[in-house]
Amino acid sequence: MNIFSVVMAGGSGTRFWPASREKRPKQLLTLFGSGSLLQQTIERLAPLTGPERVLVVTGQSHAQAVSEQLPQVPARQILAEPAARNTAAAAGLAAAWAARHDPEAVCLVLPADHLITQEALFIETLQRAARLAAGQDVLVTLGLTPRSAATGFGYIEAGQVLDDAPPQICQVKAFHEKPDLATAEKYLASGKHWWNSGMFAWRAEVLLKEIAEHLPGLAAGLEELTPALGTDQQAEALARVYPRLPAISVDHGILEKSDNLCVVRADFGWSDVGSWEAMAELWDADAEGNASQSGNLLAIEASGNLVSAQGRLAALLGVKDLVAVVTDDVLLILPKSRSQEVKRFVELLKDNGEDQYT
Amino acid sequence: MNIFSVVMAGGSGTRFWPASREKRPKQLLTLFGSGSLLQQTIERLAPLTGPERVLVVTGQSHAQAVSEQLPQVPARQILAEPAARNTAAAAGLAAAWAARHDPEAVCLVLPADHLITQEALFIETLQRAARLAAGQDVLVTLGLTPRSAATGFGYIEAGQVLDDAPPQICQVKAFHEKPDLATAEKYLASGKHWWNSGMFAWRAEVLLKEIAEHLPGLAAGLEELTPALGTDQQAEALARVYPRLPAISVDHGILEKSDNLCVVRADFGWSDVGSWEAMAELWDADAEGNASQSGNLLAIEASGNLVSAQGRLAALLGVKDLVAVVTDDVLLILPKSRSQEVKRFVELLKDNGEDQYT
Repeated sequence: MNIFSVVMAGGSGTRFWPASREKRPKQLLTLFGSGSLLQQTIERLAPLTGPERVLVVTGQSHAQAVSEQLPQVPARQILAEPAARNTAAAAGLAAAWAARHDPEAVCLVLPADHLITQEALFIETLQRAARLAAGQDVLVTLGLTPRSAATGFGYIEAGQVLDDAPPQICQVKAFHEKPDLATAEKYLASGKHWWNSGMFAWRAEVLLKEIAEHLPGLAAGLEELTPALGTDQQAEALARVYPRLPAISVDHGILEKSDNLCVVRADFGWSDVGSWEAMAELWDADAEGNASQSGNLLAIEASGNLVSAQGRLAALLGVKDLVAVVTDDVLLILPKSRSQEVKRFVELLKDNGEDQYT
Repeated sequence: MNIFSVVMAGGSGTRFWPASREKRPKQLLTLFGSGSLLQQTIERLAPLTGPERVLVVTGQSHAQAVSEQLPQVPARQILAEPAARNTAAAAGLAAAWAARHDPEAVCLVLPADHLITQEALFIETLQRAARLAAGQDVLVTLGLTPRSAATGFGYIEAGQVLDDAPPQICQVKAFHEKPDLATAEKYLASGKHWWNSGMFAWRAEVLLKEIAEHLPGLAAGLEELTPALGTDQQAEALARVYPRLPAISVDHGILEKSDNLCVVRADFGWSDVGSWEAMAELWDADAEGNASQSGNLLAIEASGNLVSAQGRLAALLGVKDLVAVVTDDVLLILPKSRSQEVKRFVELLKDNGEDQYT
């Protein structure tokens, strides 16, 4: 198979502030283990694709940092978007790039900022998805077995079972937007609603055909771009064409309109690493659930705290369920349950003109 | 008057851990304003004594750091104790030093690690105490008007009023040890019980006479030391004699046994800067009582917190009445009301052999 790994590194999230900044988004951070989330993503794909078959789509303002983190990936395979045009354009660009270099190319589309704990199973599942995409004109989605009634993800409703041998393969009955809690609980109980992970597999040609059918404006733009992809003209062509592409997600723009869909059930220990709170499962913790990124922690009558302090000794006494983060220029403290609210600091700081902290 | 300021810089407290360390005790820290507590103490005394009439008594292990902080004080006036022998020996040593250089010397004995907010009144009060000591064979104590029923200080019970013009001067009726809360409340209500501040004034000769009467072992040792004081032999003589001196406080060893006592009532905005919690009154705070040493603070639904973070932006959300301290190698978080318990970390770290943090 002629697999290309397409790593979507476009995020500029503020959910890991103060570690994440405009110039240093989450995927470029080392939040656990060694290496940034992006570097860990590329490394994890090594059994499937070497660096010569990796494409990274990222924002112009992060392209330099991405290149520095991935010296093994050829510069022209780091596709810098001059403007954010959502995932349909990003996936289309990668497909056009891959198809130009290999008409049989199968694209595995993967976010750069997720965590996978069972890597062998991950590779196995992706291989299954790639084989499926290679053999049929089908768009393959990955549906994650939900661990909770999460309201932060969209859901894929599985239809008829096509192959019951794990990983199970089904037709897609429907896509569902982020549900309310009651609906999410029904989804969880059904056993047939899986989290929409943002991971996909398709032949480049098949995606481009679907784009031509459902997003003719995008198709025209990609056609204009194609001769330049992988050449010295790539950056100039992107600067000229990309900002004009329609901005729509691959889900809304293509998947929800397509009839050639299936879903591979995925169960490989996945996390979208959505906030500091998610680190509780990833960092070493003491018996009272105090977790520290470096492991250097001394707790007295303290429990459930999360500390990232650049290797400093975290000395905690009589405090509970806090997040504390020390960076070169910020000390953040807030309750773990309010981790999502760090973005309020970013907003306030911008309002105050204190951009050095955002 | 021939005043010498005797600054007692012997402490090795752990109450400001992790800022304070064995090698960097509280008096050497900059906790507010500019300059360490020791430097601020010396500066505050400038209207009374220039550096040529300052004596600093400190532990051998801190003498180097004290010298570096006080380049204006001649090296031989930094009296390094080869072993801690409590305050009677320290005050006796300073008195012997001063008497050898000026038989009429009046010693003002002052801790190095206190805060005074009304400096003019402080100087006025000390001048009054010094005049008293210069004119009579009397040991003068300073009694601080209590602001609360504190159980952490000893009390001086004032007797007959000798001079009612402020600062009031009284005979000393009795010294009282640190009381329980009920007793402290009675003391506070009485109006005649003042905090024992550890600040004194006496002619060097008068103190030495009292030492000869009440602590003959100390007197003999000081006599042996005297010829070397202020000479090249000073360090050698201290190393030989000082460790053998009796270890007793000036209160227990001398004041409580003496009949030649009076107390000057002091009311100049004093704090012993006893713990991180005390910083709440000293650092700039926002409307919700969040105080930061550097003033660089952004608080959302947070109140009553105290932050020392080496100038970092302190971003606090939804937390209340915490102390947070960042140093080069430690992050400390605990409730403000438990500030005194930081010493538990020091004990634990010593037990664990992690001396780099103590």
